[in-house]
Amino acid sequence: MNQIFTKKETIKFRHVDFAGIVFYPRFLEMLNDLVEDWFEEALERPFSKIHETNGIPTVDLKIQFKKAGRIGEVLTKKLWVEKLGGASVTCGFKFEDENQNTVLEGEVTLVNVAISEDRNDIKSEAFSESMKSKIAPFQVVN
Amino acid sequence: MNQIFTKKETIKFRHVDFAGIVFYPRFLEMLNDLVEDWFEEALERPFSKIHETNGIPTVDLKIQFKKAGRIGEVLTKKLWVEKLGGASVTCGFKFEDENQNTVLEGEVTLVNVAISEDRNDIKSEAFSESMKSKIAPFQVVN
Amino acid sequence: MNQIFTKKETIKFRHVDFAGIVFYPRFLEMLNDLVEDWFEEALERPFSKIHETNGIPTVDLKIQFKKAGRIGEVLTKKLWVEKLGGASVTCGFKFEDENQNTVLEGEVTLVNVAISEDRNDIKSEAFSESMKSKIAPFQVVN
Amino acid sequence: MNQIFTKKETIKFRHVDFAGIVFYPRFLEMLNDLVEDWFEEALERPFSKIHETNGIPTVDLKIQFKKAGRIGEVLTKKLWVEKLGGASVTCGFKFEDENQNTVLEGEVTLVNVAISEDRNDIKSEAFSESMKSKIAPFQVVN
Repeated sequence: MNQIFTKKETIKFRHVDFAGIVFYPRFLEMLNDLVEDWFEEALERPFSKIHETNGIPTVDLKIQFKKAGRIGEVLTKKLWVEKLGGASVTCGFKFEDENQNTVLEGEVTLVNVAISEDRNDIKSEAFSESMKSKIAPFQVVN
Repeated sequence: MNQIFTKKETIKFRHVDFAGIVFYPRFLEMLNDLVEDWFEEALERPFSKIHETNGIPTVDLKIQFKKAGRIGEVLTKKLWVEKLGGASVTCGFKFEDENQNTVLEGEVTLVNVAISEDRNDIKSEAFSESMKSKIAPFQVVN
Repeated sequence: MNQIFTKKETIKFRHVDFAGIVFYPRFLEMLNDLVEDWFEEALERPFSKIHETNGIPTVDLKIQFKKAGRIGEVLTKKLWVEKLGGASVTCGFKFEDENQNTVLEGEVTLVNVAISEDRNDIKSEAFSESMKSKIAPFQVVN
Repeated sequence: MNQIFTKKETIKFRHVDFAGIVFYPRFLEMLNDLVEDWFEEALERPFSKIHETNGIPTVDLKIQFKKAGRIGEVLTKKLWVEKLGGASVTCGFKFEDENQNTVLEGEVTLVNVAISEDRNDIKSEAFSESMKSKIAPFQVVN
């Protein structure tokens, strides 16, 4: 319980805008990478396998941008689980700079879905018990 | 009052992911384009001018993804004002497909900032009266 | 013969980098949009259909960046055919600014491929006669 | 002499397209990261410093895409110097997959430029002797 999945990412030239700060859709790419790494490294569900027949689309996102991110800064990206439902999981996340200042924080809800063979039909599918047991350690318990 | 700023955008190959649906950070690029078009076309503050000394970074974003977007679909992107503060504006937005189904909807808060000449200092700055009068028609009044 | 496929595109905030000029991978996204529009509008092969069983991956690209592109500029993107092979097509392209200055120009070679049902196998496939006849008007003849 | 700058990068979900292979503008983002890392790690010119008064825009790019890149693959990105001019440098590059197959290869020419304080004027500027001596070890000598 209360485990936090953590990765570092350096802000690169491709992330920043005319004002010299991270363009916010690039922060969402960084968040997607974090979720992808969590699935691969902690949940043993690499996206390279998951997307043959399944997916985990994002259905809800809340994010507060607290501090500009600048090129060359190394961000610490943190992710944990706030709520685990039958076919969905709501994760909290926070990105911090090198001085532990919060750059952004928020919540993202992902849904486990099955994709039909012709890829035209997408419907939610319950997480397996094995998957739930791998997600459980990241749940926040007060 | 109650004016809605509206633009159309076609989902292109570059927007979609392995599952054949829009990768959600690309939806945020589409949202940024919508805000940029609103500033240029309705508020007479083109980003090409604004970014010499000012900026309007996004500080808060809430978004619900309701329906997958697929390549070739023409989205109607809508934006209006929910709250106009001294130096910030909270906009509601909705993207619809050709059958008026909601693809996504949410709220985004932008802050008007001044950028110092060396671009290292960013601080909030009140909207001018002229700017406020151009934003006003888009405010929602119940 | 000698037809040129032409589209306009405005440089947006998301295209530019810290130096205030288009980040060159964004120019390649604009080029991909141009090819996609050509396939849909002139060749009647919209990418929304093509990618169920086929693709047209880029195999060769040569590009010279002549002039910086700045936010707000409206580019005229031009594309024509330099060489039509059995399963490949080499297109010339040029992006111009509003004063007819060349922003960039180059050549891109695309290959028509068939994708196996499980999407693991990709192999080149000759263009149909119908497709060739639609491509032909864009061929440069000296 | 003959030193090769090498970095690894894993293909992520955000890199791939509907066909499940890397969308080629994303390969150019990977190439830009490689150049950025080379400047920071080998040439002691981090982009976080360089872009206050200078830049190194790409003026010429030739690239051959030999093999599709798929999600989860770890690419080895290699860069060396083919020609060092007064204010420009032409680099060769190659990305290989885990079996040493070439995924792509090509040449990119960068120009050292000075950017005026108001950022409206960009002109080429000779590399310093110190910079040239740091670039020299990466030159290919037959």
